[in-house]
Amino acid sequence: MITREEHEEAQRYAAGRLEEAGIVLTDEERASIEVADMGLGRLRETGLQLLVYVNTERCCAKELVLFPRQTCPEHRHPPFQGTPGKEETFRCRRGLVYLYVEGKPTPTPACQPPPGEYTVWHEIVLRPGEQHTIPPNTLHWFQAGPEGAVVSEFSTTSRDELDVFTDPRIERAPAVSD
Amino acid sequence: MITREEHEEAQRYAAGRLEEAGIVLTDEERASIEVADMGLGRLRETGLQLLVYVNTERCCAKELVLFPRQTCPEHRHPPFQGTPGKEETFRCRRGLVYLYVEGKPTPTPACQPPPGEYTVWHEIVLRPGEQHTIPPNTLHWFQAGPEGAVVSEFSTTSRDELDVFTDPRIERAPAVSD
Repeated sequence: MITREEHEEAQRYAAGRLEEAGIVLTDEERASIEVADMGLGRLRETGLQLLVYVNTERCCAKELVLFPRQTCPEHRHPPFQGTPGKEETFRCRRGLVYLYVEGKPTPTPACQPPPGEYTVWHEIVLRPGEQHTIPPNTLHWFQAGPEGAVVSEFSTTSRDELDVFTDPRIERAPAVSD
Repeated sequence: MITREEHEEAQRYAAGRLEEAGIVLTDEERASIEVADMGLGRLRETGLQLLVYVNTERCCAKELVLFPRQTCPEHRHPPFQGTPGKEETFRCRRGLVYLYVEGKPTPTPACQPPPGEYTVWHEIVLRPGEQHTIPPNTLHWFQAGPEGAVVSEFSTTSRDELDVFTDPRIERAPAVSD
C-alpha cells in the first residue's frame, strides 16, 4: 500500500515526464494515470506508472513511466480465452530502459533488481527510438536507467489481473491507503 | 506516380514533423518512412506518410503524418483470415485531423475532399490528445487541418493491400518514378 500523497506525487511525476516527451494529454487522462506499487509499498523501487490510451478486445496501447531505477518485477502474460496471451512491444521514448527476457543470461547485467524473485537475465538495452517485442507467456522484467524512462507499449488486449508474477508476494491491483 | 524527389521531400517533411512532436527515430526508421500517393500522383492533395513501428500477426502501431489539408481517401478494412478486419484507434499528437466515419452526416462539414468518391460524412474533430476508435470494415476518411497533422495509430494487424477504397482509381501500393 502507498499513501494517497505518494500516489498523487507519482501521477504528477508521470504527467510531467510525458509532457517533457512532447506527449499531449487531456485533463481526464492526467487524472487517470495508474500507479502500480505491486502490493509491496515500495513504489520508488518496485512498480510503475501507466496511462492506458485504449484497450479493446483485440489491441491495446499504453504509456509507461518509470522513476529512476524503478523496476517492474518479473512476470508473464498467460493465455486466456483461447488467445496465446498478451504480446507486447516496448518502445523507449525518453531515458533508458533495461529489459530482461528469457534467453542466454547476460554475464554482467547492468541492473541489480530490488529484493524479490528474478530468474531471467537476458539483457536488452533500449534507448530512445529503440524497441523490442516480447512474445506472449514469456517471463520478463525491466528497470529504468538513472534518469527514469518513458516507454510506449503497443500490445494485444491487456488483462493485468491475469499477469503471473514470479514473486508470490506481488499483487497487481493498485492499492492506495490514506 | 510521384517522382523520387517528391518522395524524398515527403519523407523529410514527415521526419521533421515527427521530430517536432518529440518522437525519436532511428536513422533506419527515417529512411523507411512510407509515402503513399494512392496511385493518383497528387500527393499533397491525396495520400499520407507513414512510419510502421511494429506489425505482427496480432497487432500494429504506426505514426501517420499529413501535409496541410492532405486527405487519406475513403476506405474500409475488410475481414481476412477469419478476423473481422483491422480495428484502429487514431490519436492526434500535433495539428488537427478531421475524421469522417459512418453515421449521421454532419450538416456543414469542415472539409472539402479532393475530387474522388466520398460517401460518409459523420465528422469527428481530433485535436492533440484526442482519439477515436474505428470498428473493422467500416468506411472512413480523414483530412489534416491547415497546419498538417501527426497521428498515432494503434491497431490490430495491418494488411494495407487488402484495403477497399470507395474510389476505384485508388491503388494503395506506394509508387515512385524517376
